[in-house]
Amino acid sequence: MRVLGVDPGLTRCGLGVVEGEPGRALTPLAADVLRTDPGEAIESRLLAVHDAVAKWIADHRPDAVAVEQVFSQHNLRTVIGTAQASGAALVVAAQVGLPVVAYTPSEVKAAVTGNGRADKRQVTAMVSRVLRLDEPPRPADAADALALAICHVWRGGANARLAHALAPVRAS
Amino acid sequence: MRVLGVDPGLTRCGLGVVEGEPGRALTPLAADVLRTDPGEAIESRLLAVHDAVAKWIADHRPDAVAVEQVFSQHNLRTVIGTAQASGAALVVAAQVGLPVVAYTPSEVKAAVTGNGRADKRQVTAMVSRVLRLDEPPRPADAADALALAICHVWRGGANARLAHALAPVRAS
Repeated sequence: MRVLGVDPGLTRCGLGVVEGEPGRALTPLAADVLRTDPGEAIESRLLAVHDAVAKWIADHRPDAVAVEQVFSQHNLRTVIGTAQASGAALVVAAQVGLPVVAYTPSEVKAAVTGNGRADKRQVTAMVSRVLRLDEPPRPADAADALALAICHVWRGGANARLAHALAPVRAS
Repeated sequence: MRVLGVDPGLTRCGLGVVEGEPGRALTPLAADVLRTDPGEAIESRLLAVHDAVAKWIADHRPDAVAVEQVFSQHNLRTVIGTAQASGAALVVAAQVGLPVVAYTPSEVKAAVTGNGRADKRQVTAMVSRVLRLDEPPRPADAADALALAICHVWRGGANARLAHALAPVRAS
């Protein structure tokens, strides 16, 4: 299973692709952070996010997209731009028909570190360890996108196994 | 000048097209409200908004898009979905290279009624009068999208005249 993690943002949008199965080693395929210029028109910045997600999907052919859920409890100064960027990213996933799952930051932290309140340093350390990286992902903000993708492989895989296990029960 | 007004929202997205010049009668060309099913996946709903805006631009060939500015002071329960919908709409404008101007609700109310704190009834009444409609726009929520378009014709026109008047000064 190959997953594209998207940590949406206007100023910085994290992108990371991970391949693997639950219980097996995961392979990082790519990670980067798209930056858009705050001096540019908002619609141009959103199009840059849209086009970057489209390019990553075309280049890496993921089976699913894991995106960070935007909450109104986020930083109020940036929450609108973050939500707009997530809207631009989600449009792409719908255009190409990829399944999308949104995870809260706590879900991602819990899945990756075992602690829903882990700090950024702990998340980065676990992402590096899980992906067997010699050093932390660069740029640093890409770690969150990789964590989203890892979370989905592990949780998505678990859900798929659960659905499989329950299928005979449901069918009976 | 022909303007597409977009009042973004996930559950209801208002769309309205108005043609005219400042100081002259304005003509309403179309108005509607796109509804998306809250039971559908968020990415499908955002794609529906994206595609509706694309269709309206293709059908009506506006010169500009006027969109309501999303604020974190909006209804917190719906602000994330509203911002995501505006992101989906703005991507379309950028894709086709149309200029976008965002107006706050107070700016629209002030432009259309002369009172930045006008209520919905007053805005609808003035939209109907300005567009010489025999009865209020239907669906009712489309009035806000028409008000955005009216606001942009009047303010955009004023700005264009100002830019024109200042041009010789700037050039000298």
